[in-house]
Amino acid sequence: MGSDSDLPVMKQAAEMLEQFGVGYELDIVSAHRTPEKLFEFSSNAHKRGIQVIIAGAGGAAHLPGMVAAISPLPVIGVPIKSSNSIDGWDSVLSILQMPGGVPVATVALNGAKNAGILAAQIISVMDEDLRVKIIQYKEELKAQVIAKARNL
Amino acid sequence: MGSDSDLPVMKQAAEMLEQFGVGYELDIVSAHRTPEKLFEFSSNAHKRGIQVIIAGAGGAAHLPGMVAAISPLPVIGVPIKSSNSIDGWDSVLSILQMPGGVPVATVALNGAKNAGILAAQIISVMDEDLRVKIIQYKEELKAQVIAKARNL
Amino acid sequence: MGSDSDLPVMKQAAEMLEQFGVGYELDIVSAHRTPEKLFEFSSNAHKRGIQVIIAGAGGAAHLPGMVAAISPLPVIGVPIKSSNSIDGWDSVLSILQMPGGVPVATVALNGAKNAGILAAQIISVMDEDLRVKIIQYKEELKAQVIAKARNL
Amino acid sequence: MGSDSDLPVMKQAAEMLEQFGVGYELDIVSAHRTPEKLFEFSSNAHKRGIQVIIAGAGGAAHLPGMVAAISPLPVIGVPIKSSNSIDGWDSVLSILQMPGGVPVATVALNGAKNAGILAAQIISVMDEDLRVKIIQYKEELKAQVIAKARNL
Amino acid sequence: MGSDSDLPVMKQAAEMLEQFGVGYELDIVSAHRTPEKLFEFSSNAHKRGIQVIIAGAGGAAHLPGMVAAISPLPVIGVPIKSSNSIDGWDSVLSILQMPGGVPVATVALNGAKNAGILAAQIISVMDEDLRVKIIQYKEELKAQVIAKARNL
Amino acid sequence: MGSDSDLPVMKQAAEMLEQFGVGYELDIVSAHRTPEKLFEFSSNAHKRGIQVIIAGAGGAAHLPGMVAAISPLPVIGVPIKSSNSIDGWDSVLSILQMPGGVPVATVALNGAKNAGILAAQIISVMDEDLRVKIIQYKEELKAQVIAKARNL
Amino acid sequence: MGSDSDLPVMKQAAEMLEQFGVGYELDIVSAHRTPEKLFEFSSNAHKRGIQVIIAGAGGAAHLPGMVAAISPLPVIGVPIKSSNSIDGWDSVLSILQMPGGVPVATVALNGAKNAGILAAQIISVMDEDLRVKIIQYKEELKAQVIAKARNL
Amino acid sequence: MGSDSDLPVMKQAAEMLEQFGVGYELDIVSAHRTPEKLFEFSSNAHKRGIQVIIAGAGGAAHLPGMVAAISPLPVIGVPIKSSNSIDGWDSVLSILQMPGGVPVATVALNGAKNAGILAAQIISVMDEDLRVKIIQYKEELKAQVIAKARNL
Repeated sequence: MGSDSDLPVMKQAAEMLEQFGVGYELDIVSAHRTPEKLFEFSSNAHKRGIQVIIAGAGGAAHLPGMVAAISPLPVIGVPIKSSNSIDGWDSVLSILQMPGGVPVATVALNGAKNAGILAAQIISVMDEDLRVKIIQYKEELKAQVIAKARNL
Repeated sequence: MGSDSDLPVMKQAAEMLEQFGVGYELDIVSAHRTPEKLFEFSSNAHKRGIQVIIAGAGGAAHLPGMVAAISPLPVIGVPIKSSNSIDGWDSVLSILQMPGGVPVATVALNGAKNAGILAAQIISVMDEDLRVKIIQYKEELKAQVIAKARNL
Repeated sequence: MGSDSDLPVMKQAAEMLEQFGVGYELDIVSAHRTPEKLFEFSSNAHKRGIQVIIAGAGGAAHLPGMVAAISPLPVIGVPIKSSNSIDGWDSVLSILQMPGGVPVATVALNGAKNAGILAAQIISVMDEDLRVKIIQYKEELKAQVIAKARNL
Repeated sequence: MGSDSDLPVMKQAAEMLEQFGVGYELDIVSAHRTPEKLFEFSSNAHKRGIQVIIAGAGGAAHLPGMVAAISPLPVIGVPIKSSNSIDGWDSVLSILQMPGGVPVATVALNGAKNAGILAAQIISVMDEDLRVKIIQYKEELKAQVIAKARNL
Repeated sequence: MGSDSDLPVMKQAAEMLEQFGVGYELDIVSAHRTPEKLFEFSSNAHKRGIQVIIAGAGGAAHLPGMVAAISPLPVIGVPIKSSNSIDGWDSVLSILQMPGGVPVATVALNGAKNAGILAAQIISVMDEDLRVKIIQYKEELKAQVIAKARNL
Repeated sequence: MGSDSDLPVMKQAAEMLEQFGVGYELDIVSAHRTPEKLFEFSSNAHKRGIQVIIAGAGGAAHLPGMVAAISPLPVIGVPIKSSNSIDGWDSVLSILQMPGGVPVATVALNGAKNAGILAAQIISVMDEDLRVKIIQYKEELKAQVIAKARNL
Repeated sequence: MGSDSDLPVMKQAAEMLEQFGVGYELDIVSAHRTPEKLFEFSSNAHKRGIQVIIAGAGGAAHLPGMVAAISPLPVIGVPIKSSNSIDGWDSVLSILQMPGGVPVATVALNGAKNAGILAAQIISVMDEDLRVKIIQYKEELKAQVIAKARNL
Repeated sequence: MGSDSDLPVMKQAAEMLEQFGVGYELDIVSAHRTPEKLFEFSSNAHKRGIQVIIAGAGGAAHLPGMVAAISPLPVIGVPIKSSNSIDGWDSVLSILQMPGGVPVATVALNGAKNAGILAAQIISVMDEDLRVKIIQYKEELKAQVIAKARNL
């Protein structure tokens, strides 16, 4: 994430990864304040065995796109509605509208929970057990709605 | 894709997958006109060995989100600027703003090329050779810009 | 409705239907979490004698459009301004901008009250007494404004 | 419709009604240029046996809402992207965002075709044969997509 | 104004008119709930000696435009940010984007104060003393800013 | 007007004034390129017997608001969709959203025709014959629509 | 700044200038309420030895553009989200979208802190020591992020 | 600039700099395709005696902000309306909405001409002759408008 102020949103990604039993590391890398760290992190992540990167940032959010520019890994971008954002539009468009050649897998505004699930889905491409957990997770979502409907 | 009118955009995803040597199938599944096919396709894709789904649609674009609702696979959504779209905003927001629990990996408006690259990046999680091809692709992008800068 | 968090808005539709003496049932059907229930509900509603469906949802709101894709009944869509919505634009555009062939009768953001009235207007096509009640309702709206103007 | 410049869009509603065998009349009523005609038309439509009103207009589109203010019938509003419109947003919001008590069943920008289908769906509430035709129409939409998918 | 909920905003117009010594009457006329009163008021205002009409409304705000459709008087429109408005855009566009032939002099969102000043400016076209008051008012605005700058 | 590129739009105001027999002068005053002329023009217009000012400009359109800041006359602002405008939003908001104390009577995007009519309506406050012409103009608008409806 | 209500935002620019040891003066100049002061200030600033002007304003924010129209100095514009602003869009577009020939160096919504830094960067063009301070400032930003990352 | 497709816009900056006699170099540096070159260019520019950097880019435009993150020089950002842009909003917001600490001096959409002028204004802080040229340029702008007004 680009700033420690993004933690309340971004920790939801971590929680989903824990729920799915997927290992992760959590760090602050600011595209605008620590560009060297951004370069180093993005250049080396795939060499260290990391499989997916989740990058969240607000305002003119350049972190996800710059990580995707440097790393060959799939990069998930989480637009964050920060304090001086123009209703989140700046963050959404800065992350989503990447040029041809450099994709960022963008999720909803403040959608860190879904970023965690998407990361798990990506890793399940090589992990049968994780695929099963994802199928179970979808069944639980269904069961919760059915229960709520019954309680109506 | 949701309609054959989406083909000029969506074939760019196919071209990238061919370039990376990733197998794919191309089909029309309309969330609004063939809901049964949507249901059947999405329920079975992972059972048939498919690893990633790319879904593109315009306007009130429900195809990517509905596929993601049913399938456990990672789903990439491509917003398409169709003829009666309100400047593409409808398609972007219909695909991006998914609720917690059901992510869609959204790329830029008409960004099917990036959807193809992202699909390859996802599959490279379990395919070392593909990872190498992606690193080479990024090197080629770089070389093209350097060449253009030299010709300026 | 797509979630129990939509109840505070959607119950305003129920209240209007009660006021007009129109029978109704209230249920939670999530397009993204219970797609089978969506499919079953939408396929059978007209066979059970239901005449109009009101579907409300927020964010990337696919419920109204998917119900309209499956059911032959007139479907009224209520965009709901949910917590992580981008000012309601996502919900409005996801419901309104349906492709040719599959209409959704969209009402204002959070406009569940009007959805209830519109449903009554639709049923009044075959119910003279209900038409009279709607005419009376419009007279009451008028009388309230006249009274407020007098008190100014 | 509010102006003869709206005819290319609005005749698509007429075509759908003809396809479904639903009788209709086509007229120009301008909220801003012929307010008396608006008043007279809206006050009398239900007395003349009309069951649904489709009103299309562009820019600051007041026709659908004003018809709905006066008539007890269900009113379908078609936002039209006219020449000096701000990308259609003015027309969409002027029709959609009606206050509580006075609904307009809004369809997509330039969505007159869907307005015709919705009108037929509304009338099918009291017309079994029309309901059957609507079900058949949905089957044809499906068949067309299946055929296109086969030709891919 | 279209509703008594608009009073906190619209009374600012009345206060400016009082400050300039311009006579006025204050009424509630709802385009959507009291269309007959709208017609009657707008048809007769100029016959009763009224010189300018200020109309304020929120959401799909049809009051200013409909008054302007019927009355030959200059009509000032005040967009109001009401509770279920989409950030005020609906109200602004519904009032501003009038078709050729029927102008509404639109002021800023919630800009009732300016509507009062503009009405005074319009009447000052035939009232020299009022023109002088307006010039004095502008001098006072200036003096206030100068004083604040001095206190900085 | 702020630039000679605005002439195709702004001459529509002149045409309406000619049709109503209202005298006018047409000039280019650029807020950003000729600020002294702006100041001189705005300070003196009311002393020269001018009764209303119509100011049109595109992009960050400061002309109408700056004229209104200096002149005590009613100022009508015409937002113009110029070549590098962001769909006209910049021009509309720069003219409409004036602070309390300094109104600009804003008309629709490219709505110079309506600016001419509004100017005539304002002057009709002191000119009975002009009021009659405006009433006749409204009758002609009506007759044109009735004729078009008959030809349908 | 255009109003004393802008002080809480604009003082952040002053704080940055103090931190960099750059002299400044702080004044209220309203484009709309004190146009003469605007002219006088802007005409003379460069003669008094001022090197950069920072102008902040909200709503239809004409101050930065009008200062830039008159002064040959680089002008930094700060859009401010004032109370009746439409989410800040009016202020952003009024300042940013200046016509060719008259630039305003626009910073983010409420971005007065960055305006102060930018002013220091501009002055550092002729001040080596200031350049060094800016480089140090960037190092401090970096160190803060590194420290926060360590505390995570 | 970020791509050779930006050249038609960005050369307008070069033309203004030539007109003012300010030396410049023109290069393609893509934040997303040549991140190392971005880093190297931005780290060294001030050491090579460069005083101002103009960076133009479209879509999710990260170039200006990333240059500003690394270089201590004042950075001017030019949003460019590229082919798949969402009406330019993505580019404007990606460049403008920088976080506190890292300013980008943003000009209008496609406003490269103004970027050139602004760069000259910044350099004129240490160059009296250039200041005089800027004052003359403003006089020429004025003379052109006066001449056009005369020809009206």
